[in-house]
Amino acid sequence: MDKPFFEDYQEGQVIQSPGRTITETDIVNFASFTGDWAQMHTNREFAQKAFFKERVAHGALTFAVSTGLAVRSGIMHDETTIGFYGVDTLRYLKPVLIGDTIKVNIRVMGKQDKGRKGVVDLEIRVVNQREEDVAVYTMKILAKKKN
Amino acid sequence: MDKPFFEDYQEGQVIQSPGRTITETDIVNFASFTGDWAQMHTNREFAQKAFFKERVAHGALTFAVSTGLAVRSGIMHDETTIGFYGVDTLRYLKPVLIGDTIKVNIRVMGKQDKGRKGVVDLEIRVVNQREEDVAVYTMKILAKKKN
Amino acid sequence: MDKPFFEDYQEGQVIQSPGRTITETDIVNFASFTGDWAQMHTNREFAQKAFFKERVAHGALTFAVSTGLAVRSGIMHDETTIGFYGVDTLRYLKPVLIGDTIKVNIRVMGKQDKGRKGVVDLEIRVVNQREEDVAVYTMKILAKKKN
Amino acid sequence: MDKPFFEDYQEGQVIQSPGRTITETDIVNFASFTGDWAQMHTNREFAQKAFFKERVAHGALTFAVSTGLAVRSGIMHDETTIGFYGVDTLRYLKPVLIGDTIKVNIRVMGKQDKGRKGVVDLEIRVVNQREEDVAVYTMKILAKKKN
Amino acid sequence: MDKPFFEDYQEGQVIQSPGRTITETDIVNFASFTGDWAQMHTNREFAQKAFFKERVAHGALTFAVSTGLAVRSGIMHDETTIGFYGVDTLRYLKPVLIGDTIKVNIRVMGKQDKGRKGVVDLEIRVVNQREEDVAVYTMKILAKKKN
Amino acid sequence: MDKPFFEDYQEGQVIQSPGRTITETDIVNFASFTGDWAQMHTNREFAQKAFFKERVAHGALTFAVSTGLAVRSGIMHDETTIGFYGVDTLRYLKPVLIGDTIKVNIRVMGKQDKGRKGVVDLEIRVVNQREEDVAVYTMKILAKKKN
Repeated sequence: MDKPFFEDYQEGQVIQSPGRTITETDIVNFASFTGDWAQMHTNREFAQKAFFKERVAHGALTFAVSTGLAVRSGIMHDETTIGFYGVDTLRYLKPVLIGDTIKVNIRVMGKQDKGRKGVVDLEIRVVNQREEDVAVYTMKILAKKKN
Repeated sequence: MDKPFFEDYQEGQVIQSPGRTITETDIVNFASFTGDWAQMHTNREFAQKAFFKERVAHGALTFAVSTGLAVRSGIMHDETTIGFYGVDTLRYLKPVLIGDTIKVNIRVMGKQDKGRKGVVDLEIRVVNQREEDVAVYTMKILAKKKN
Repeated sequence: MDKPFFEDYQEGQVIQSPGRTITETDIVNFASFTGDWAQMHTNREFAQKAFFKERVAHGALTFAVSTGLAVRSGIMHDETTIGFYGVDTLRYLKPVLIGDTIKVNIRVMGKQDKGRKGVVDLEIRVVNQREEDVAVYTMKILAKKKN
Repeated sequence: MDKPFFEDYQEGQVIQSPGRTITETDIVNFASFTGDWAQMHTNREFAQKAFFKERVAHGALTFAVSTGLAVRSGIMHDETTIGFYGVDTLRYLKPVLIGDTIKVNIRVMGKQDKGRKGVVDLEIRVVNQREEDVAVYTMKILAKKKN
Repeated sequence: MDKPFFEDYQEGQVIQSPGRTITETDIVNFASFTGDWAQMHTNREFAQKAFFKERVAHGALTFAVSTGLAVRSGIMHDETTIGFYGVDTLRYLKPVLIGDTIKVNIRVMGKQDKGRKGVVDLEIRVVNQREEDVAVYTMKILAKKKN
Repeated sequence: MDKPFFEDYQEGQVIQSPGRTITETDIVNFASFTGDWAQMHTNREFAQKAFFKERVAHGALTFAVSTGLAVRSGIMHDETTIGFYGVDTLRYLKPVLIGDTIKVNIRVMGKQDKGRKGVVDLEIRVVNQREEDVAVYTMKILAKKKN
């Protein structure tokens, strides 16, 4: 999609992002960035005895990376996207483990006209290398209109 | 709150996190981490002519930092929190600009019993140094039960 | 340009990348990454008495960022670009100072057929917010052929 | 070499830098820094099916690290090096894979007198732990004269 | 300990921090941050022939991480700790290797009244996943008095 | 000093490191690295009402950077330094503020023969751009003997 204005988004349209492998580095760097050093993410000994039996990526890491992948997919554009409006109903379905590769499958779900601009609802499915959904949410973005 | 189990969360309880100043460094580091280099965040010249007239923090940055602040507030604990369950209805209300200081005000909104564990709904209000809400959402966490 | 194969590059074609403001953070992070802490980049007191009178970005920083900007411009694509082949005649023309915003202007200069693949020569002009050239070089990339 | 002025560089002089292991962390951090998330560097699944069969370091990473190694070798000095003048004919000869250790072998190739200062041409051979050349280029630096 | 003032610290009191796994990422990031690229930390080939037979964490990394763990333990608080006063007799007892998990065991050793504030001496034992001491020192912090 | 063995260190010898400006980036990156987000370092609003009236560098940041500066000074060498032995009596004398430039003045204080190796005591004075001591300590390093 090339510089999509509000009018250009069509319900049902789909786009797929490139993929990115989530590494131990990403988990350490995200713990560093956020200050969330919860031990299920950052302590190997602790994690081995905890729910997932190994260190898992932060849910917020998966979300943050998914927004970057969405931008890289081309579904938004500097000239036509005003900003990030919000999120509806984000759910985590499977853990993201070190070495998993995730990408996002995006589908235009709906649009709300807001006068001189509009909100576009994008279904974001974050999938791993086995095409399993690891997280699903609705991203709402604010887009310019053509006139 | 000291190692809060599902049973320990009381509807209406409130807790406040420490604050953190969002710096130019944070925006550069978050663009780096996510790969979201949208110019409203990373190009000063572009931003001056765009909607907010200056570079603004990524919405996902505000969310990511807010999860770290929530962890630092003590509302969750390594021994009793199983993981991040999801988010309901995140909305951005005001931009976060370079130099703004944000913290989170947390309120226990409700709980859902899920047998051997439970989901706790936390209202997260991200506020700036003028006590203005910049983002609001419901964070859902999965907590252990006492037995 | 959408997934450009060797055959798709046309001499004289031009493309422009988005821009990125070079911040103090970038200089610190690049000194960190490379281990090049030369004081003209990292010591404000030293720099004030040196040639440029203030801290300047590393030449290699400008080059590194320019490759990222080139990738973001769409001139290359994961499916059709095999790799980075080399550089011819990189020259630095003006310093990049903290707060400058750079982008790259790319022009297809020539192509060399190498049998099953080919080398594409791209003239890269790194320009600042005043449209002054700060660095110029030829980037050579290896591209797949259609068959 | 101790604070080498233009006059101190002798054609044929050689110097070797320390070595540095290129880690997964370096690749993630460099993708982050530059915004070049091309999947041959950052997506393990993609890379396994691509030309090199595994993730490879960015060419620009190898170049950036080589400049840091050159500075650490002592071939330049804060008091006598004015800046980075340019590069001639950089070619990549072998991929740098995760876990490879690189260093630079430097040889003074020639000098150009520019009145009150001078340009020194350094042949930079980036070699891996098997002493194989992975990249070769001429680095041109601008040096002070003694008087 | 909740917002401990000088008067609240009791000789013999003990507290334990959470643990953190020291990763290759941490060593690369710390070499980056400090500029200490000594090859025993950053060059796998070199390290294999050196004293510890593999790359080891910087001593200063272990110290830096231990201060972060101490803050996370709750022994200090933003409202009552004025600052870091100093260190007495830090000794390294065992190397920290990639993959080791460290935490700190803290014991209040003594206090010095300084009029309107006071110095608290904390014995810091940095231990690994086998409960072996890897470093020991006395951290001296400056604490507010209640009145 | 070129590859100094234990025997080469002479009591009273002095060496000075290059300088480095401590930036807001460094403080954010160090808080990130260590997990020490104490608000005197990371919250501008909080810091303005606290002891130093503005954000100050972590004491452990000053220490960590000083070890990197010491390595860059040439007082140690990969081939002859076995490792970091410990620290005696570190004291913080003045705060390091954003924009201050620090370097280390090093003096060989004494040596202890340990059979096949030896400990060298280095007095480290960390000074700012006004030549004021900001921190002072004794660094003890373990050095190889010539035979």
